Amino acid sequence: MIYLDNSATTSLCENAIGKINEAINCFGNPSSLHSVGFEAEKLKEAARDSVYKALGVRKVSGDRIIFTSGGTEANNLAIYGCVHSKSSNKGKKIITTDSEHSSVLTPFKQLEKEGYVVEYLPTKKGQIDIDDVKKAVDKDTVLISVMAVNNETGASYDIQNIFKTAKAINPNITTHTDCVQGFMKIPFSPTKCFADMCTVSSHKIHGPKGCGALYVSADVMKTKRIIPIICGGGQEGDYRSGTENMLGICGFGGAIEYMLPKLADNFKKLTELKEYTKDKLASFVTFNEPDASVPNILNITLPSIKSETMLHYLSSEGIFVSSGSACSSNHAKKASHVLIAFGIGEREADCSLRISFSEDNTKTEIDKLSVALQNGIERLAKIN
Amino acid sequence: MIYLDNSATTSLCENAIGKINEAINCFGNPSSLHSVGFEAEKLKEAARDSVYKALGVRKVSGDRIIFTSGGTEANNLAIYGCVHSKSSNKGKKIITTDSEHSSVLTPFKQLEKEGYVVEYLPTKKGQIDIDDVKKAVDKDTVLISVMAVNNETGASYDIQNIFKTAKAINPNITTHTDCVQGFMKIPFSPTKCFADMCTVSSHKIHGPKGCGALYVSADVMKTKRIIPIICGGGQEGDYRSGTENMLGICGFGGAIEYMLPKLADNFKKLTELKEYTKDKLASFVTFNEPDASVPNILNITLPSIKSETMLHYLSSEGIFVSSGSACSSNHAKKASHVLIAFGIGEREADCSLRISFSEDNTKTEIDKLSVALQNGIERLAKIN
Repeated sequence: MIYLDNSATTSLCENAIGKINEAINCFGNPSSLHSVGFEAEKLKEAARDSVYKALGVRKVSGDRIIFTSGGTEANNLAIYGCVHSKSSNKGKKIITTDSEHSSVLTPFKQLEKEGYVVEYLPTKKGQIDIDDVKKAVDKDTVLISVMAVNNETGASYDIQNIFKTAKAINPNITTHTDCVQGFMKIPFSPTKCFADMCTVSSHKIHGPKGCGALYVSADVMKTKRIIPIICGGGQEGDYRSGTENMLGICGFGGAIEYMLPKLADNFKKLTELKEYTKDKLASFVTFNEPDASVPNILNITLPSIKSETMLHYLSSEGIFVSSGSACSSNHAKKASHVLIAFGIGEREADCSLRISFSEDNTKTEIDKLSVALQNGIERLAKIN
Repeated sequence: MIYLDNSATTSLCENAIGKINEAINCFGNPSSLHSVGFEAEKLKEAARDSVYKALGVRKVSGDRIIFTSGGTEANNLAIYGCVHSKSSNKGKKIITTDSEHSSVLTPFKQLEKEGYVVEYLPTKKGQIDIDDVKKAVDKDTVLISVMAVNNETGASYDIQNIFKTAKAINPNITTHTDCVQGFMKIPFSPTKCFADMCTVSSHKIHGPKGCGALYVSADVMKTKRIIPIICGGGQEGDYRSGTENMLGICGFGGAIEYMLPKLADNFKKLTELKEYTKDKLASFVTFNEPDASVPNILNITLPSIKSETMLHYLSSEGIFVSSGSACSSNHAKKASHVLIAFGIGEREADCSLRISFSEDNTKTEIDKLSVALQNGIERLAKIN
């Protein structure tokens, strides 16, 4: 198996599996007021400490990590939770980009129906023009949500500059970044980027699916600019009720501890691997490559062969890539909004593939991908 | 260790662990359009089939099982999702009971703030008077949510009669039951009880924490009387977005397959064990025992010793019980709303413990509990 779909999900690392097994054996409910509960609570809080460490933020400062059921829920919580909070900046304007993940775009569309005015910043060629930000942000703006790394093109947006600019115009704005594709891939800390809230996820970094977290700054907590979207027993400081997903949370912590020390090495390794891949494929595909991008995602356009056709061909050869994001496969088939926003035509978008690496991939695998792609193009072009 | 807090959470059964390990090895994203994704999708759907089977409902009829992050989210989804749906019965009245779990009560209180009129049915002595239901339900009623089994007293409510009565008065009402404490403990099927929606959870039946499901009837689906509360990639038929908690879902399926064939035997065994416990403790505690109750929960009041004091004493002896529900331990300490609703005073409620059995508990363990309780009462009374 040659797995090159690591932006859809990753295999579990041994460290995550180890922590999952610990959680299996430590079965208490963290809310229980006896030692079986306390043991579970300890495991859970150790995982939370790992998230704090990975994001370079501090519990003692009042910064908060809220465990959620994944990136989707964390994005929903950040957006609905902020906009619906009575303490958030008054106003009816909210800002995002035209190439966000559906778990950001769908809440924004919902809020549009509720009467909010949404401004979508263009991301042509994977770039956000700072002048667009300056024009968009005003005194009425409640929230700006911009992803750190795009999940289809790998575009790395300059959220530090974007959020700094936004806050200079309107100090009461709340800033949120969906960092699911950037977390543990690039050096990142929300405080350095002026991000008040930040979404991270476990299953993109060799942890289990169904677990993520929302970072919320001490300032947002203090000014009560967030309210929960799931309520009940008051877990997670009353910001996210429900008995905790112990296997998910502990596995997430384990994955972070595995990835964190390797971050710089992985970055270097994957940068080389991406360059190697581009060299190998350059003669027969086009790259949809932003100026600034992460080393683990490469988006290509095939010569007149539909993405899905090639995806299935490669799958039959034991090579796994993606057409667009995995999530979007649940919706009616249409051209990727990300690639259209990037600036390629619908036809080209329909013929595009995402290759997403992990540090476990090798040049030998890329050689095989290259051969399979060339063979595929030859065969499938004939069928067409 | 003598674990008698099985209504807070349970240990994982071997079958659940087996399925979790399968999911660990089958790491694909179920939304991915290649064979690694398809394998994960298959595991997930097998787990869903187990929930269908356990609830005696049918996929082919259009009945839907929506996987959630647990009972809390499923309750929130049922309540908010129904009441906020434009297709639900028009009107501003919603009905529940005064002893629901906080994941039902908190959404109801939130809806009260939104302008809905909430009627709380009394549950004195663990019973719901059908005349109260008749008086409460009217043409304006959107939703009635009544738990099948109370999590603190074990009271088993006659939801079949309650929902039948409600629907006779108002055929457009939507009925929901939180069946977290009844599922796999008593024979139960939502269709037989006239329940349009039903919440179940994994970690109360020897499955992992952080996974549950909401059953939604074909009728509610067809008439669109539910909308999602978490949106994005469109997983779970667009009723619950987010990459699926595969370890949780598969473990849940495994737990159901383990519990289902044993249901009748467990019921018999636990009925005996509860009677045995009552015989053993009758001389020195009072029972808060409803007329109709499940065999796995026994609520007792101690003679003038605070629940928490005894709970810690028992914990130090390696015996684990609960004061009220685990979830409520996250909120400011106050007397259990359930026991107050049951009809005992605040002082008594403050001195009450919940003993909750699983089929793994033995009479020898109960003997030890009995001795420890008596010793505890003697010692702690002196300290007081």
